[in-house]
Amino acid sequence: MTEESLTPGPRQEGRSFVEIISYSPGGCEETRDASPEDCARAIGSPGVTWINVDGLGNEESVHRIGELLGLHPLTVEDIFNTGQRPKAEDFGFYLFFALRMLTYDEAARTVGNRNLSVVLGEGCVVTFQDGVDGDPLNPVRERIRSGKGRIRGEGADYLAYAVMDSVIDEYFGVLEKLGDHIEDLDDRILSAPDGAHMKDLHLLKREMLFLRKAVWPLREEISALEKSDSRLVGPSVKPFLRDLYDHTIEIIDMIETNRDIVSGMHDTFLSAISNRMNEIMKVLTIIGTIFIPLTFISGIYGMNFEHMPELKWPFGYFAVLGIMAALAAAMLAAFRKRKWF
Amino acid sequence: MTEESLTPGPRQEGRSFVEIISYSPGGCEETRDASPEDCARAIGSPGVTWINVDGLGNEESVHRIGELLGLHPLTVEDIFNTGQRPKAEDFGFYLFFALRMLTYDEAARTVGNRNLSVVLGEGCVVTFQDGVDGDPLNPVRERIRSGKGRIRGEGADYLAYAVMDSVIDEYFGVLEKLGDHIEDLDDRILSAPDGAHMKDLHLLKREMLFLRKAVWPLREEISALEKSDSRLVGPSVKPFLRDLYDHTIEIIDMIETNRDIVSGMHDTFLSAISNRMNEIMKVLTIIGTIFIPLTFISGIYGMNFEHMPELKWPFGYFAVLGIMAALAAAMLAAFRKRKWF
Amino acid sequence: MTEESLTPGPRQEGRSFVEIISYSPGGCEETRDASPEDCARAIGSPGVTWINVDGLGNEESVHRIGELLGLHPLTVEDIFNTGQRPKAEDFGFYLFFALRMLTYDEAARTVGNRNLSVVLGEGCVVTFQDGVDGDPLNPVRERIRSGKGRIRGEGADYLAYAVMDSVIDEYFGVLEKLGDHIEDLDDRILSAPDGAHMKDLHLLKREMLFLRKAVWPLREEISALEKSDSRLVGPSVKPFLRDLYDHTIEIIDMIETNRDIVSGMHDTFLSAISNRMNEIMKVLTIIGTIFIPLTFISGIYGMNFEHMPELKWPFGYFAVLGIMAALAAAMLAAFRKRKWF
Amino acid sequence: MTEESLTPGPRQEGRSFVEIISYSPGGCEETRDASPEDCARAIGSPGVTWINVDGLGNEESVHRIGELLGLHPLTVEDIFNTGQRPKAEDFGFYLFFALRMLTYDEAARTVGNRNLSVVLGEGCVVTFQDGVDGDPLNPVRERIRSGKGRIRGEGADYLAYAVMDSVIDEYFGVLEKLGDHIEDLDDRILSAPDGAHMKDLHLLKREMLFLRKAVWPLREEISALEKSDSRLVGPSVKPFLRDLYDHTIEIIDMIETNRDIVSGMHDTFLSAISNRMNEIMKVLTIIGTIFIPLTFISGIYGMNFEHMPELKWPFGYFAVLGIMAALAAAMLAAFRKRKWF
Amino acid sequence: MTEESLTPGPRQEGRSFVEIISYSPGGCEETRDASPEDCARAIGSPGVTWINVDGLGNEESVHRIGELLGLHPLTVEDIFNTGQRPKAEDFGFYLFFALRMLTYDEAARTVGNRNLSVVLGEGCVVTFQDGVDGDPLNPVRERIRSGKGRIRGEGADYLAYAVMDSVIDEYFGVLEKLGDHIEDLDDRILSAPDGAHMKDLHLLKREMLFLRKAVWPLREEISALEKSDSRLVGPSVKPFLRDLYDHTIEIIDMIETNRDIVSGMHDTFLSAISNRMNEIMKVLTIIGTIFIPLTFISGIYGMNFEHMPELKWPFGYFAVLGIMAALAAAMLAAFRKRKWF
Repeated sequence: MTEESLTPGPRQEGRSFVEIISYSPGGCEETRDASPEDCARAIGSPGVTWINVDGLGNEESVHRIGELLGLHPLTVEDIFNTGQRPKAEDFGFYLFFALRMLTYDEAARTVGNRNLSVVLGEGCVVTFQDGVDGDPLNPVRERIRSGKGRIRGEGADYLAYAVMDSVIDEYFGVLEKLGDHIEDLDDRILSAPDGAHMKDLHLLKREMLFLRKAVWPLREEISALEKSDSRLVGPSVKPFLRDLYDHTIEIIDMIETNRDIVSGMHDTFLSAISNRMNEIMKVLTIIGTIFIPLTFISGIYGMNFEHMPELKWPFGYFAVLGIMAALAAAMLAAFRKRKWF
Repeated sequence: MTEESLTPGPRQEGRSFVEIISYSPGGCEETRDASPEDCARAIGSPGVTWINVDGLGNEESVHRIGELLGLHPLTVEDIFNTGQRPKAEDFGFYLFFALRMLTYDEAARTVGNRNLSVVLGEGCVVTFQDGVDGDPLNPVRERIRSGKGRIRGEGADYLAYAVMDSVIDEYFGVLEKLGDHIEDLDDRILSAPDGAHMKDLHLLKREMLFLRKAVWPLREEISALEKSDSRLVGPSVKPFLRDLYDHTIEIIDMIETNRDIVSGMHDTFLSAISNRMNEIMKVLTIIGTIFIPLTFISGIYGMNFEHMPELKWPFGYFAVLGIMAALAAAMLAAFRKRKWF
Repeated sequence: MTEESLTPGPRQEGRSFVEIISYSPGGCEETRDASPEDCARAIGSPGVTWINVDGLGNEESVHRIGELLGLHPLTVEDIFNTGQRPKAEDFGFYLFFALRMLTYDEAARTVGNRNLSVVLGEGCVVTFQDGVDGDPLNPVRERIRSGKGRIRGEGADYLAYAVMDSVIDEYFGVLEKLGDHIEDLDDRILSAPDGAHMKDLHLLKREMLFLRKAVWPLREEISALEKSDSRLVGPSVKPFLRDLYDHTIEIIDMIETNRDIVSGMHDTFLSAISNRMNEIMKVLTIIGTIFIPLTFISGIYGMNFEHMPELKWPFGYFAVLGIMAALAAAMLAAFRKRKWF
Repeated sequence: MTEESLTPGPRQEGRSFVEIISYSPGGCEETRDASPEDCARAIGSPGVTWINVDGLGNEESVHRIGELLGLHPLTVEDIFNTGQRPKAEDFGFYLFFALRMLTYDEAARTVGNRNLSVVLGEGCVVTFQDGVDGDPLNPVRERIRSGKGRIRGEGADYLAYAVMDSVIDEYFGVLEKLGDHIEDLDDRILSAPDGAHMKDLHLLKREMLFLRKAVWPLREEISALEKSDSRLVGPSVKPFLRDLYDHTIEIIDMIETNRDIVSGMHDTFLSAISNRMNEIMKVLTIIGTIFIPLTFISGIYGMNFEHMPELKWPFGYFAVLGIMAALAAAMLAAFRKRKWF
Repeated sequence: MTEESLTPGPRQEGRSFVEIISYSPGGCEETRDASPEDCARAIGSPGVTWINVDGLGNEESVHRIGELLGLHPLTVEDIFNTGQRPKAEDFGFYLFFALRMLTYDEAARTVGNRNLSVVLGEGCVVTFQDGVDGDPLNPVRERIRSGKGRIRGEGADYLAYAVMDSVIDEYFGVLEKLGDHIEDLDDRILSAPDGAHMKDLHLLKREMLFLRKAVWPLREEISALEKSDSRLVGPSVKPFLRDLYDHTIEIIDMIETNRDIVSGMHDTFLSAISNRMNEIMKVLTIIGTIFIPLTFISGIYGMNFEHMPELKWPFGYFAVLGIMAALAAAMLAAFRKRKWF
């Protein structure tokens, strides 16, 4: 079986693609486009079974897998809820986790997110993905296939950890790209702020808000998992969960820091605009303050009174020009004293 | 009994409309416009009894039902308090919940809210609604009548859950409509901010504040119910309450996110106004700075001094026009260098 | 004894007016202007005794009552501290509460507050009021006198609750009036903001700050009382304390909401001012931008050069007028395109 | 020994002045400028011993007293740390407290602060003051000397309380003076805001920040002391510590309220400036908008075209004056309609 | 062995420099540029062993030391993670701490930070530094070499404390320099705010954000260490850890205070800009308001109507000059009344 043949082919909306990976320390077996019967068989077999459902279009199929696993109706409802908030629930014979998979669309500069539901049962992990356009779980598949690392030697709890770890690792990438965008916008605002930046900032703020909403509950979720006394989570997996928890905290930290930065950029934008207006006003004021009085003087001697003695003075014109020059110089000196330029 | 005949007819203020639904796995029976005696009989009968009181206009009737159930005077006081804050209280042989039912008035873009008091006793649920213009509980009534789902097979605790779940499900609709309004206002602010948007924002902010006040205490309330060790709440209902709690958290999340968005929109509005003022000032400054000096020059040569040698030069006029054009060009170049246009 | 004769007559600063109300389910007896000896006798008698001290002017008298009750020196100090922060303290054989009584001065639109110290002992409640101009406790007095409700049948703990409840009920009235003031100011700011509103807002903000400071510690205080395991607080009073606690939470909620509203009004005020300035600038800029170039043109042809060919053209004047009109029209079109008017 | 002789004389930097007060219910004895040997003797004697060290200039002397008391090296380090954060530490056979003594410099309007380290051992209290220019402990000294109050009858724990109480009582004075300054600045900002107020506000904000930093940790410190189960703190002192804790909370409340007020003043300052700018712009706009078009009209008839029929009309001049007056009146009416003046 | 010879020589990226210091109360021995074998031998020997790895370039070497110590794969991953968030983890037979070493680049005014991983095992401490350009641990090395203080007499737990203490002590220096920068910028903003200050403030804000992110988790980390019941941390080290915890709190306090100051400076900057604009507008308005009407008057008498009676009056010119002077004086008086200058 080549690497190529394992890459999921084109799938259609309105259906669900089921993939089964069964493994034990000795080897691993994969079934693509599996039927619920395949799933039942795989769950019954020894070793660890991973059933991955891509796309929730085929509702009946998802319901049958849910029945197979004995899922509570509320769990099935959560699986189908495309806006499900991340959470962890212990139903005794299985644990349920809802996660969000994030992707960053470089062109639109928006963060997309899809639902991932993880059910950890006895010797099996079932993942339900809302959407069929690829997932961040290929590294896990590769590690199972290659037998490298400890994954084949561990149980289903480790597999659940590995799946969640892959998903959370993707967050770092998304945050890094968002960070680059922020950095870039920041530079542009500092050099020449304009209205377009304001719109960018506005969208960025929203992006951060939605991101935060998607990630924040993870903290509690993973902490609950780590502290869980469920027999489904063995002691050897606990340090890995602790590590995952640390990653989650780090991601939340990064988001909060980014939010603070974006909020600071907004202040800077406002300051920059104020500062610019200040500059503009200064120019207008300097020009206006110098020329308005001068224009007034020229207006005086443009009046048509019959008796205006200055008009007849031989050097009246030059005297007035001189006075104007002196006045302008005095004004400029006053402005310089006030450090206006 | 047809579906139609069950729809509540027109009711008047100043009275209370009492409706009894008794059911067991086997069937269900409804009594409309019931008397307190009907209530007493229904409570005594086996199966689950739901007494719904619409409108608190008939105080005596409400008091009699309260006595029938043995309600504490404080509970009755809370039922009549139209501004009752959501809360949960355990009085031993009954549990009391106060909730708010929200409606969104599309025309006025305001959120209305009415009181719903729920009393969960042994084998019975009594709901008191402040107001008679419809409620979000029809889905519950339908499920009881049709016998679909698990409701007929469960006890009064599940009925109380179902009632609260219906109320809280309405919140999502209200929030969605508010979200649309926000989205719409956001677009308009970004394209052309004006004073009317400011008023809209102001009202929106208030709406969010009141919404938050109405919803926030639910969190504690439902959590208290879920963790309650009251014998009135059975273990099979606990997962549903946990689910309800998750919904509440989600609603609070949505409200907080909306508040953040609205607050961000205010900042954006201010920035947009600043930015606009900046644009306006630039235009004024460019025009003023170019023409004020030119006008001054023309003023000079409009003076009536007898001795103004330039006036006699054959090309004086064209020389001055040339100087003016050069000056204006220099000014424009300076502005462009400063990136003013 | 008529209702009238019980209304406290005019009292003077510098003295303390002591009033004793003793009651049991069977009846009630009042002593006005009582001496410390009366107090000692009343405390010794069976039934519940309420000693109310109006005004702390007569320090000796207060000290003697304190000794009578065996109050700790720190309690006496707290009674005399006119700025005492609300608090609850358990001294074993008595409980001490400090509260603030609020009044709203409609004319000055300020909230006044006075100290109320409540000592709950075995079978007696002693209240010390800082000031003599009336208190919100008349409803309690009336219920004792009339024997209506449960007050006569309950112990001193219920009396202490009733006193605190009356005080806290007053808060709702004060907050309602403040709310009306806020509503009123809000309308005026939205229609035409000016500097006077800013001062009003500033004072309102302060009022809210002081109100919050006075009310906030109540939460903890009443919660401590409810959870207290002191033998002075019986189980039948606990639901009432829980209710009182809910009222306190509601008041704090209202204050916080009002603070948010006032803070939002400040933002709106700033936006409104910015928006107005924007309008003003637009008018100036439109007028300036249209007329400054026109004035310049007229200045050109007001110059006195001997050789200005246009001046001699028969239709020069009308041509210039036409050019000016065209220029003004072009400017107006540009402004309209930018949606300036 | 006269009162005068006890007032500390002038001391020099670079040395430490040690003062011992030993007392028992029967009497009290003071030693000024004591040597470490005096200290050793005093600690050994029955009754309560208070050793006060003014100035840490003589490091050796401080170290010897530290050894005498068996202080941990970290405690000695903390004593010498002039910027020590308030804290409480239990070293078993002694308790260590770090406090800050505050003073308000009326002229500079700044808050000064110095370190006070308090060591509470078996039967003795040792206080180390960083600086020699007076302390707020004279009331304690007086109470010991005069034998008034309960101090002489209580143990070392009460003395430690009395010392801390004196220090914290000073805070109220400092806060009152700061409050006066705030009140004063507030009035000035509301009547006529200018740049100097901005600097004052800026400094005030900082003052509050540093004050808060100095006081905030006290809360925890005194709470820890009150809840301590150290045998050095007897039960009779606990109510006093609770009282001290209440004072600390009150001080923190006052600081926070003041911070909120100062922050509100900043907003008001900004609003006032905006409002002023608005007024200024209005004046400029009204004047400009009225006269710019008029000047343009006068410019038209100042042109020198040969063919300008109006110029020859007998009442042309008066007609133009009339048109100008009508235009100005129309402008003014438009402004009044917009409520510009 | 001279002091000089111990200073690390120039090292290259891409490799790791390992240094071993073994000591006991009796003496100390150092090995520079040690091999993994040296490490194995040193760990086996009695006394305390400190292995310091500078630079993580030689991955294999680090991995071998990790295996030697039996480190969990996740610990090794954390050591190599250059952006590792500070944290503490207990792996039973060893404790792992991640810290950040801060440096302040005076020229660029930026804070640099590098990773320091500390592993505390039985009788040994291993430190891994990300980077080779010097560390703040020389004081620890010196104290071990010289045998001064208590370090040689204590165990590995004290050494771990000493290492962390040195790192945290560096923070104070960094914060002091940042504080100087803030102070300096503050002065400049108050005297003459301009756009460059805005950029400085913006960068400073970011610096504070990153600093906070680096330091904040320390609080929890050190608290966890102090409260740890690991047998690796002896009771005699606990007071030192408490002291370290206090330092951490102090540093966090300083950072928060600095953040508040910087945020206040931003407000001050905005106010200063607003205030300046206000001044500028006043100048423009005063000049404009005085001269625009005067210019209009002069324009009137510059018109060329044939019938303008005033032009023929002998004192018309002087009368107009007089009227103009009176008008200007009236304007100035009005401005002064409004306190515009």
